[in-house]
Amino acid sequence: MNNPAPRARDRISTKPLSGMRDFLPVDVARRAHVIDVIRSVYRAYGFAEIETPTLESLDTLLGKYGDEGDQLLYRVLRRRDALRRVLDQAHAEDRPPTEAELAGEGLRYDLTVPLARVVAQYGDLPRFWKRMQFQPVWRADRPGRGRFREFWQCDADVTGTTSLVAEAEVLGAVSTVLTRLGFTAFELLVNHRELLRASIRSAEIPDELESTALIAVDKFDKIGADGVADELTSRGITAGSAEQLLTLIRDQPETSNAARLDYLDERIKDEAGRRAIADLRQLCAACRHNAANAALRVELRLARGLSYYTGPIFEIAVPDLAGSLGGGGRYDGLVGMFGKREVPAVGFSLGLERILVVMAERDMFPALSVSPDVMLCSMDVDMADVVQVAEALRRGGVRVETYPEPAKLKKQLQYAASPQVGVRFAAILGQDELDAGEVSLKHLGSGEQSRVSIADATQRILAEVGRPL
Amino acid sequence: MNNPAPRARDRISTKPLSGMRDFLPVDVARRAHVIDVIRSVYRAYGFAEIETPTLESLDTLLGKYGDEGDQLLYRVLRRRDALRRVLDQAHAEDRPPTEAELAGEGLRYDLTVPLARVVAQYGDLPRFWKRMQFQPVWRADRPGRGRFREFWQCDADVTGTTSLVAEAEVLGAVSTVLTRLGFTAFELLVNHRELLRASIRSAEIPDELESTALIAVDKFDKIGADGVADELTSRGITAGSAEQLLTLIRDQPETSNAARLDYLDERIKDEAGRRAIADLRQLCAACRHNAANAALRVELRLARGLSYYTGPIFEIAVPDLAGSLGGGGRYDGLVGMFGKREVPAVGFSLGLERILVVMAERDMFPALSVSPDVMLCSMDVDMADVVQVAEALRRGGVRVETYPEPAKLKKQLQYAASPQVGVRFAAILGQDELDAGEVSLKHLGSGEQSRVSIADATQRILAEVGRPL
Repeated sequence: MNNPAPRARDRISTKPLSGMRDFLPVDVARRAHVIDVIRSVYRAYGFAEIETPTLESLDTLLGKYGDEGDQLLYRVLRRRDALRRVLDQAHAEDRPPTEAELAGEGLRYDLTVPLARVVAQYGDLPRFWKRMQFQPVWRADRPGRGRFREFWQCDADVTGTTSLVAEAEVLGAVSTVLTRLGFTAFELLVNHRELLRASIRSAEIPDELESTALIAVDKFDKIGADGVADELTSRGITAGSAEQLLTLIRDQPETSNAARLDYLDERIKDEAGRRAIADLRQLCAACRHNAANAALRVELRLARGLSYYTGPIFEIAVPDLAGSLGGGGRYDGLVGMFGKREVPAVGFSLGLERILVVMAERDMFPALSVSPDVMLCSMDVDMADVVQVAEALRRGGVRVETYPEPAKLKKQLQYAASPQVGVRFAAILGQDELDAGEVSLKHLGSGEQSRVSIADATQRILAEVGRPL
Repeated sequence: MNNPAPRARDRISTKPLSGMRDFLPVDVARRAHVIDVIRSVYRAYGFAEIETPTLESLDTLLGKYGDEGDQLLYRVLRRRDALRRVLDQAHAEDRPPTEAELAGEGLRYDLTVPLARVVAQYGDLPRFWKRMQFQPVWRADRPGRGRFREFWQCDADVTGTTSLVAEAEVLGAVSTVLTRLGFTAFELLVNHRELLRASIRSAEIPDELESTALIAVDKFDKIGADGVADELTSRGITAGSAEQLLTLIRDQPETSNAARLDYLDERIKDEAGRRAIADLRQLCAACRHNAANAALRVELRLARGLSYYTGPIFEIAVPDLAGSLGGGGRYDGLVGMFGKREVPAVGFSLGLERILVVMAERDMFPALSVSPDVMLCSMDVDMADVVQVAEALRRGGVRVETYPEPAKLKKQLQYAASPQVGVRFAAILGQDELDAGEVSLKHLGSGEQSRVSIADATQRILAEVGRPL
């Protein structure tokens, strides 16, 4: 309660934590621009927005993302008595406390598991529910270019139906977003988990090595065909099986999705695989008249890392970007993992940071104003009068900063013209102007200055910055 | 990577954690409405928006909020090797690990300390910086009505000046927000930390009991004058001193702020106290022409819990609400605690949850639409055609949901008319309509139905929901 003395240590780091970022006004404006476009497109597709808590029970989070995911979860230390009990107990038993004893809650790892929890929890949601959600998630991963420990996902999911209309609508919405943001060359890679599994079976890889094979295929773009072959054989898969699988993946024709599906249809003989091929044919057909059509590419090497997918899977590829702008798929088993009823679902997650990196590199942002319009400078007038004139301008819709301290006019104008401040005008208020109900309005670019009424100043400023009166 | 089997435990709780909430679409819309109003008003006052990470180093967070604050911080468990080392070390030394060993990072506790860190970190911010920030914060407090463990603060702060223009602008902005949201009866309580300290000195309370006295005064509204007196005397303050302090607090005249300040001026004799009174006089004068003027009330009992305030302090009081909608004050020492230069600052934090509670109880929200406009129902037409017609309506600005599965038309229309879905129209697409480039548009309220072109449907739907073509 008392004013604390500065602490003895003389240098607390003021940088954000590794893998996390401060967003200054230009960053916030760019992020808001992208999210506004996504929100407005998704709304047109009938998605309604929700938000879920940052913290979830570890019971909810664990076992949904695979072993790597479980390891990358941020866990929250138990508090006070609960922590004390755990530490005392372990100490009494002469052993270190376990991670599970130390933490019962974790930070949100994606937006899909919270959605599944929400669908299981609330009985009065629409049967076919389209939900969107734009929130940060946390993963204790090694930070890298475009890879952060705190990053935003922008998700759209349809729950309650196995109809491929849901997939088509999700892919249409995502493609419309990318087009609206200004992306022209992008591909929507599409595969099907059951087709992948059937391909693995058709290569005579034993069932117990299926997920080993999936993990290897998922690395195709990073380590190439030879790398995948090495990984497969080093994990106990025969060279013959590895070659069979890689042939399927590599040798699909380039001509069209139909030709690629025909190629697979000739080689995949089991029932589940053929149903998956039929699904993909139907999905391509359903997208014939939406924004996804031109971008769709059936791609057997697409595997997606997360463990909960059960049907079609998707990923966005853009030229010159390692990694993707987002991905998704069908996950019909996840809601049922919360122990109530089964609810089929399909969704897509756009990675805000990846989109921003590409848009910044390619200069794709529109002009985004983050500065006030005018700096109100004053000379020998009362504080209350400065406040009054500022208020009058604001009532007209002008964004007004006031120079807060007594200073020479030249100093005030220099400050107003500095690039950090970024205003286009200075408005000068002296006793003369005040008595006349006017300001001296100075255009900082041209240096032009004239005495005008508050109403005229409002009009001129709004015309210059391009906002309506 | 493989599809996980449902876990053996058959009931994971699907409720959000205690003190945290899922926000469904209506909640998100209400929250967004309030934040949009705050953002637009603050922007008119020249504030620029930033965001900071959810996690901060505990070095940054500890020692800024008082002992209670330090206890309420959420701490994040160290990971992998770092955790292992800590546990092994403690075990080897035959003692439990300490909290400081187990966690080096914590969740954001407010938005003011992160701002101070940002101001210390970035050299090229404007000298007088007005920043706004709207983000959640976390406190491991006991949950209660309107008190959550995850809640949002909406902050506006001015850094770089000791001028009371900054206080006046912050109070003007806050008052404009409340008025714009529809609040009519609210008070802006104003006090000054130095005036409080001088009052405590004038009651002959020894310096070492100053923060004890402040903590007691802070509870005035909760426990009343007698409660404060009891607490003061039980902490070693004489009955005479307690009575002197309470007299100052209780007996200020009700007539006007000027009269209240005169009353204090007659009784507070030391220099710092008189400077504080002069500050408050100047602040009242500076607010004479802004939205704060009618709401300002000088109130000596206002103490504010946080330890970092150094000058004027503020709080919003509304009738019938225990606790406040927000508060703030001047904190000239906080940036300097990060070990570089001193930067004076003043700010205000609006509590989003408190505002929402009052607005909900008083029915202060405008109509906020969260549903799509129309449900596209179909009969015996191709999936691709449904998608095509949905896309055509969306291009015109209509928010379209599609019924995703084959079903009898009656069932589709019943679903469209259900309150969870909330659309005003159904558009029916059969082969006839498709051939004619039309839909049968049904108004679900009146039951009226007619065949119209896509363009006419677009026009009628937008007119009904009140969005421009």
